[in-house]
Amino acid sequence: MSLDQVLARIDADLDDSLERLLALLRIPSISTDPAYKADCARAADWLVEDLASMGFDAASRPTPGHPMVTGHGGEGGRHLLFYGHYDVQPVDPLNLWNRDPFDPAVEETADGKVIRGRGSADDKGQLMTFVEACRAWVAVNGSLPCRVTMFFEGEEESGSPSLVPWMKENAEELKSDLALICDTGLYDPQTPGITTMLRGLLGEELTITGPDRDLHSGMYGGPAMNPIRVLSKILASLHDDDGRVTVPGFYDGVPELSDEIKAQWEGLSFDSDGFLGAVGLSRPAGETDRTPLEMIWARPTCEINGITGGYTGDGFKTVLPSKATAKVSFRLVGQQDPHAIRKSFRAMVEEMLPPDCTAEWHDHGASPASVMSTENPAFEAARQALSEEWPNPAAFIGSGGSIPVAGYIKSVLDTDSMLIGFGRDDDAIHSPNEKYHLSSFHRGIRSWARILDAIAKE
Amino acid sequence: MSLDQVLARIDADLDDSLERLLALLRIPSISTDPAYKADCARAADWLVEDLASMGFDAASRPTPGHPMVTGHGGEGGRHLLFYGHYDVQPVDPLNLWNRDPFDPAVEETADGKVIRGRGSADDKGQLMTFVEACRAWVAVNGSLPCRVTMFFEGEEESGSPSLVPWMKENAEELKSDLALICDTGLYDPQTPGITTMLRGLLGEELTITGPDRDLHSGMYGGPAMNPIRVLSKILASLHDDDGRVTVPGFYDGVPELSDEIKAQWEGLSFDSDGFLGAVGLSRPAGETDRTPLEMIWARPTCEINGITGGYTGDGFKTVLPSKATAKVSFRLVGQQDPHAIRKSFRAMVEEMLPPDCTAEWHDHGASPASVMSTENPAFEAARQALSEEWPNPAAFIGSGGSIPVAGYIKSVLDTDSMLIGFGRDDDAIHSPNEKYHLSSFHRGIRSWARILDAIAKE
Repeated sequence: MSLDQVLARIDADLDDSLERLLALLRIPSISTDPAYKADCARAADWLVEDLASMGFDAASRPTPGHPMVTGHGGEGGRHLLFYGHYDVQPVDPLNLWNRDPFDPAVEETADGKVIRGRGSADDKGQLMTFVEACRAWVAVNGSLPCRVTMFFEGEEESGSPSLVPWMKENAEELKSDLALICDTGLYDPQTPGITTMLRGLLGEELTITGPDRDLHSGMYGGPAMNPIRVLSKILASLHDDDGRVTVPGFYDGVPELSDEIKAQWEGLSFDSDGFLGAVGLSRPAGETDRTPLEMIWARPTCEINGITGGYTGDGFKTVLPSKATAKVSFRLVGQQDPHAIRKSFRAMVEEMLPPDCTAEWHDHGASPASVMSTENPAFEAARQALSEEWPNPAAFIGSGGSIPVAGYIKSVLDTDSMLIGFGRDDDAIHSPNEKYHLSSFHRGIRSWARILDAIAKE
Repeated sequence: MSLDQVLARIDADLDDSLERLLALLRIPSISTDPAYKADCARAADWLVEDLASMGFDAASRPTPGHPMVTGHGGEGGRHLLFYGHYDVQPVDPLNLWNRDPFDPAVEETADGKVIRGRGSADDKGQLMTFVEACRAWVAVNGSLPCRVTMFFEGEEESGSPSLVPWMKENAEELKSDLALICDTGLYDPQTPGITTMLRGLLGEELTITGPDRDLHSGMYGGPAMNPIRVLSKILASLHDDDGRVTVPGFYDGVPELSDEIKAQWEGLSFDSDGFLGAVGLSRPAGETDRTPLEMIWARPTCEINGITGGYTGDGFKTVLPSKATAKVSFRLVGQQDPHAIRKSFRAMVEEMLPPDCTAEWHDHGASPASVMSTENPAFEAARQALSEEWPNPAAFIGSGGSIPVAGYIKSVLDTDSMLIGFGRDDDAIHSPNEKYHLSSFHRGIRSWARILDAIAKE
């Protein structure tokens, strides 16, 4: 019944653990594209079967969108809720992948072995680290060390429309002493982190219409307003010369870092040059008076995630298009109110529209930032457990990404979340050639075994 | 041997003329898309066969791109060169068509019968008006009224890369007393025009690269430069608040209208409100101190014809893309030098690039504006012939579009061109649901018969 036996079992079972992950990765569960609806259901069923095989009372639970997966196992001790998501991002541009994104494999790289495929890091590989830790624990000890509720979502990559209503309806079943979320990254390949600051996310899609049909730019160019020109002007105005976002009221509720956090982050000696250099950049964009680490972890941003209008195929077509569309997202911090910012952004755009042009809006979700309380002693226990497994001690860190579920778990279930994950900055999540290091997977499983051991008892 | 007999023959043969046009329209000869290469060759072969059937010595002539079609017929009198193009624009967005663009048909509309299908107006329908006029002439008189050289291009919609080299190589064969080009429009449905001012065209494609791969906007948003933001800033800067193009030196060589032309155009009582209202607009964009007619016929413009970057599919993806691309075209007038403007535009863009961003360029053609000399007495003879056929007398007019071949016929062959066409402003060329009025087709054929009669003798 010792932790060492569980860790040994994990090491011995690694090949089989990997085979299971590859089987899950082969299911193209792209939640944002309706064409993959059946695949999302298939991924949920696969997980139900896997949880059931190790004694969980597991089920695929219908929602208006893709199903939730729940599993109840173990008893006594702390009641832990584990959250992960089985849906994945779209894969385009497909031609930039070095292999079929849904034919995953382990590849040798200069940086060690990696599991290549869509979802390997975000989030199937991470989700399975916890599942495999539970499996090893059950195999060695016959049962889990405490009560565990599994909770897997299938809509994380498409704005989680069903999440909050479903959590509200099933709150009694999900309420627990602490939630564990595995959808974040290491601080660096040697240093694990417990993420305690998360940015919020506001997603907007904007379509500008000028003329009511596509026109010939020779016949109408000049007198007819071009919606791409209007859209460009709007997008170009979203940042001022100092890189600050110009939406009125945008910085309301944005806190300055405390001296304590500032000192802690300076101690991390973040390598800005290396961070940017790894993706072919040398100078930080964004707010001119902030460091890159502060920008990612603690400052709000505005990004254009997609734009399209007119003729975009090969060759040339002298069209003056009727419509142009952009997808824009805002990362939020502190007390920024996503709904107020949405309203202000839309009003700003409407005010910039020339006569004859109209804007249509598509809402792609809104979640506020969250800051975790680390007062629960499980945080310090988990930090120590992680520090046993990895070369460097674990740190409490921020994250540039948004994990809205942590906020919902707090607001709907009144449960604190502890975010621990094993991804790396260069995992290419949301990009071609996504990968998850085999060492992230292996050490991730071992990390959860250690954490379970450390926090199972209240 | 009278003109009346030829006109009667045209009327009697109209159904067959229409069937021939529909057969040609069924061939999807999209020149800009390599997938349609064989179809372009098929359209050329169809024309060769049709010309041969009425006695022309016709051939499909290879080029590095799509073939040229030539046909030699008739003898004596003025040697006329007739130019048209058999290639067509792409058809996307396909879902906006009310029928298969390559399954053409005659449709009843509130505005009379129209021939619906890609290429009906641009330029197969127009090209066939001249071919059918020749056919009727041969049928009635046994031969053409003068020497005619047919010259059909298959790359007009894709920048005409082979045109000038091929014309140079075959200049002796193409040299003639006057060129006729049928690729322009009526002034209005009752008023034919001979187009004597044509704008030039400069096409540019610009790709901005920021980071060397697609990034997660949560992880990199802020410190990493977003190429869509850079591109938007560049495009937004191309016009000043008065609607003038900001490229340095852009207005060099742009002439003011002579008082005479100004007076003539004012006499046309152009309906700006109706022109814009027909496409859902109410206020002219473009240069604030110019009228819409002046903007279209005599002012240079800059339009963004296409833009793409990041995720543009359904749903949302928080990507920070590596690249963003725009297609930009400039319409040129007077003595504007397309090559100088290209250089200035590229320099202006390069200067705006932030550190770490690069621009790649793709050249999509450059042709200067052209102004036809109307001194050749054939112009006045043709004007009178057109005036016989249509409700209102014909006018010498300008055109917003670009017909570069007219300039090449002058520079390479030293031959003047007379541009006469029967399209309407709302024909939706380059757009979904392209159509050509049956009356344009029928009266167009009759117009050419009259013009041939009027100008065949030197």
